[in-house]
Amino acid sequence: METKSMPSGFSVNGRDYSARAGAFVAICLDGSADDYLNAAMSRGLMSHLQRICLDGTRGLARAAMPTFTNVNNASIVTGVPPSVHGIGGNFFFDTTIGKEVMMNSADFLRAPTIFPAAAKAGRKVAVVTAKEKLRDIFARDLIPLGGIGFSSEKAALARKESHGIDAVETLVGEPTPAIYSAAASLYVLKSGVALLAAGLADFLYLSTTDYIQHKAAPEDPIALDFYAKIDIELGKLLALGAILGLTADHGMNAKQRADGTPNVLYLESLLNEMFGEGFRVILPITDPYVAHHGALGSFAVVHTPPNVSPDSIRDFLIGLDGVTEVWPRDQAAKKFQLPADRLGELIVCSGRDVVLGRTPKYHDLSGLDAGLRSHGGRYEEMVPFIFSRPLNEAYRARLRGDPRNFELFDFLLNGTQP
Amino acid sequence: METKSMPSGFSVNGRDYSARAGAFVAICLDGSADDYLNAAMSRGLMSHLQRICLDGTRGLARAAMPTFTNVNNASIVTGVPPSVHGIGGNFFFDTTIGKEVMMNSADFLRAPTIFPAAAKAGRKVAVVTAKEKLRDIFARDLIPLGGIGFSSEKAALARKESHGIDAVETLVGEPTPAIYSAAASLYVLKSGVALLAAGLADFLYLSTTDYIQHKAAPEDPIALDFYAKIDIELGKLLALGAILGLTADHGMNAKQRADGTPNVLYLESLLNEMFGEGFRVILPITDPYVAHHGALGSFAVVHTPPNVSPDSIRDFLIGLDGVTEVWPRDQAAKKFQLPADRLGELIVCSGRDVVLGRTPKYHDLSGLDAGLRSHGGRYEEMVPFIFSRPLNEAYRARLRGDPRNFELFDFLLNGTQP
Repeated sequence: METKSMPSGFSVNGRDYSARAGAFVAICLDGSADDYLNAAMSRGLMSHLQRICLDGTRGLARAAMPTFTNVNNASIVTGVPPSVHGIGGNFFFDTTIGKEVMMNSADFLRAPTIFPAAAKAGRKVAVVTAKEKLRDIFARDLIPLGGIGFSSEKAALARKESHGIDAVETLVGEPTPAIYSAAASLYVLKSGVALLAAGLADFLYLSTTDYIQHKAAPEDPIALDFYAKIDIELGKLLALGAILGLTADHGMNAKQRADGTPNVLYLESLLNEMFGEGFRVILPITDPYVAHHGALGSFAVVHTPPNVSPDSIRDFLIGLDGVTEVWPRDQAAKKFQLPADRLGELIVCSGRDVVLGRTPKYHDLSGLDAGLRSHGGRYEEMVPFIFSRPLNEAYRARLRGDPRNFELFDFLLNGTQP
Repeated sequence: METKSMPSGFSVNGRDYSARAGAFVAICLDGSADDYLNAAMSRGLMSHLQRICLDGTRGLARAAMPTFTNVNNASIVTGVPPSVHGIGGNFFFDTTIGKEVMMNSADFLRAPTIFPAAAKAGRKVAVVTAKEKLRDIFARDLIPLGGIGFSSEKAALARKESHGIDAVETLVGEPTPAIYSAAASLYVLKSGVALLAAGLADFLYLSTTDYIQHKAAPEDPIALDFYAKIDIELGKLLALGAILGLTADHGMNAKQRADGTPNVLYLESLLNEMFGEGFRVILPITDPYVAHHGALGSFAVVHTPPNVSPDSIRDFLIGLDGVTEVWPRDQAAKKFQLPADRLGELIVCSGRDVVLGRTPKYHDLSGLDAGLRSHGGRYEEMVPFIFSRPLNEAYRARLRGDPRNFELFDFLLNGTQP
C-alpha cells in the first residue's frame, strides 16, 4: 500500500470526499453521551479535548435510530442511514426463513463502506474496532486492497493475509485486552497512535466499546479515569499531526428505578397476556456481548400474529406507561430511515429511564451489579460531534442545521479547515 | 413578613417541602441548553458554576412538553405537569367561546404555586421574572401574604401594595432594562442578589428570558459574555450563603436551512391546500414578545374541520418531511401530560431543525436578522439540573432516573445536603 503520490478524491454512496493530503482520524467513542465529556473536562481531565473544543469545533449531531452500536457504526462507515445500508439493528427476524438472524457479517451491508474507495484513492486506510463483530463487517473488502483492519478483542490473531497486519501486540506494545474492560477501548486508540506513528496508516477509523458507560455514570471515578486516559491518546494523535473527528454511536442513560432495579417493560409477556400467544418481540440491542446491559434497550420491534387487529395492539402499547412512541412498519421506516424489510409490524420506543424486554425469563440480569444504564431510544440520539479544526463556512452552516453523526467522514475530510 | 421563628414544612400539590432553615434560590435560566453552559465553562468564563458542578450536583432533567416558557415556568412553580396546572402553552383556542385565548393571567392556573404556602410557612418569598407576563401569573396570591413579586421589564412600576416592594431600581442600583436585552435577564439575578443581601427574601424564584439564546449560538461571543455575567451573579448568591438550584424551561436549537433562512412547515397552508378550508393551527409559543422567534416553534396544535377524516389528516401530517410526531388529543394529553380540554384534535412535533407555522402571511420574520433559533419540541426537552450542594441518597437515586425540571424546588429544599 506504499504510495508516494497525492491521494485523489473519491465518491461513495453519493458523497464526494476531498483529495486533500494529510492524516485523518475518525473516532467513534461508543456510548459517549456529551455528559461524559463534560464531567471529565470540568475536572480538568481532558486538556487535549478542551483545546480541541476551543481551537476546533464542538457541536452535537443526531445519531441514527435505533441508537445502537452496529446501526450507527454502519452508518458512519458508509455515510448513509440504515434505510440505505440495511443494518437496522444487531439482529432481526427474517420472516422469509422464520428465523432470528444476527447481522454480524458484511453480507448484510447493502452499501459499500468508504474504506475500499479511500484505499483505491491512495489513502493508507486502517480500521480498528474494540469488538471483533464490527471489524468483520467493515474491513472485509478493505484487506485485499492493502488496508488494515483488526479488533482489540482479537488483536493477537491479526495476520497479514487476513487483517493486513501482523504482530499487533508488538506494534502497540501491549497484550490483547479483555473485551469487558476499559482497556479494550483504550487499545483501539493506542493502536491508532501506533499505526499513525509507524506510517502504516493515514486514514483511520477507530471505534471503541461502551462497557464503561454501561457500568458508570459520567461523574463516576471509573468513567472519569477512562476519559482521562482517552484524552492522553487524543493528545498523541494530535502531536502526530492528525486531524481528528470525534462522535459517538449513541448516548447513555440510567434505566432503573430509584431502588436500583432495572425499569423494564416486558413487551412479549404483556402482549401475550393481553391478546394471547403469537407475538415475537425483537430487541435489536442483543448481540454476543450482553452481560453489561442484559439485552435491554429502549427500542423494540414487534412481530404480531395475523389474527389480532394492528390498531388494537398499537393502542394497547401506546397506553403503557413508559412507552413513548409506537409506529407501524412503513412509518417507522420513513421517520427513522430504517430498512422496512428488516422490521416487524410495529416499532416501539421507551422513555429516558425505561427499557423494553421480551419476557422476564429471557433476560439474564445477573451481570447488572451496578444498575442498568442503556440506550436505543430517542433520549440517546444526540451525541458529540467534534473536530480538531475549525470548519469552513459551508460546513459551519450545516452544523447549525441537523448534522448527523454518520456525516463524520464528510465533515472530517471536506469540512475541516487545513 | 418579618419573622424570627424557624420556617415550618409545607405541602403543595401533593409534594411536601422541608422545614429546614436557610436561604434557597431557584433559578430558571430560560432557553439554557446544556451547550451554553459547556461553551462558557470550557472557556473558563463560569468559574462559580464550575465550582458548583464539582462541589455540588450536575445532571440533566426533562422539561415538560411543549418546551415553552409559560408551560415550564408554570410547572416549576407548582411542582406538577401541565395536565394538573392547566398551562399547556402560551395560548390556546377555546372551542366553547370560539376564540384564541392568551393564558397570561393566574386565572388559567388550575393549581396553586408553592409561593403562598412557603410564605405562610414563614419563608420570605420573592419572585422575580424578566417578563411581566410571568410575574402576573405566579405572584398574584403571594403579595397579600407579604411576599415580593416583580419583573425586570416593569421594575420601575413595582409598588409595595401591588408588588410587595417599592423602589426596586434603587435597591438593585440600576434602571429598568429593555425587555429585548441581555440586561433584562441579568437584572433578574441582580435583583435576587439585592433582595437576599438586604434580608428582604430567603426563598427566591428567579426566572430569566431567552432573548440572547434565540439570537446567539453557544459559542457566539454574545452568548459567552452573557453567561460570564450570569456567573458573576451566581458567585454573589453563593457568597451570601444561598443554596442554589438551577434549571431551564427548555433548550434551544437552530431551526434554519444552510442558507440561513427559517426552516418552516406552514401547516395551516399545507392542510388547507390538501383538504380545503376549516383548519386552525395554534402555535402555543406565540405571546406578546415574538420579535426574536417570529412565533415559530417545533410544536403545534391543530383544530380540524368535522368533515375530514382524522386518520387521513394524521397520515398526511406524519408524511411531511420534518414532522416527527403526530398525536390525537387524548394520547397527547396522556403522553405529554397536557390538559386535554385546551388542546385541539391533533398535536404535531417537528425535528431538531424544523419549526411549524400557520401561513407565510401570519408570521413576521423581519426580526430574524441572525437566523432562527427556537424550541418547543422534543429536541429542547433535556435541560441542565444543577444544585450547589451534593444531594442526599434518595435524591441522588432520583437524579439517576427521569428527574423533571419542575421538581426544582423539591430537589432544592428536600434533596440538597446542608
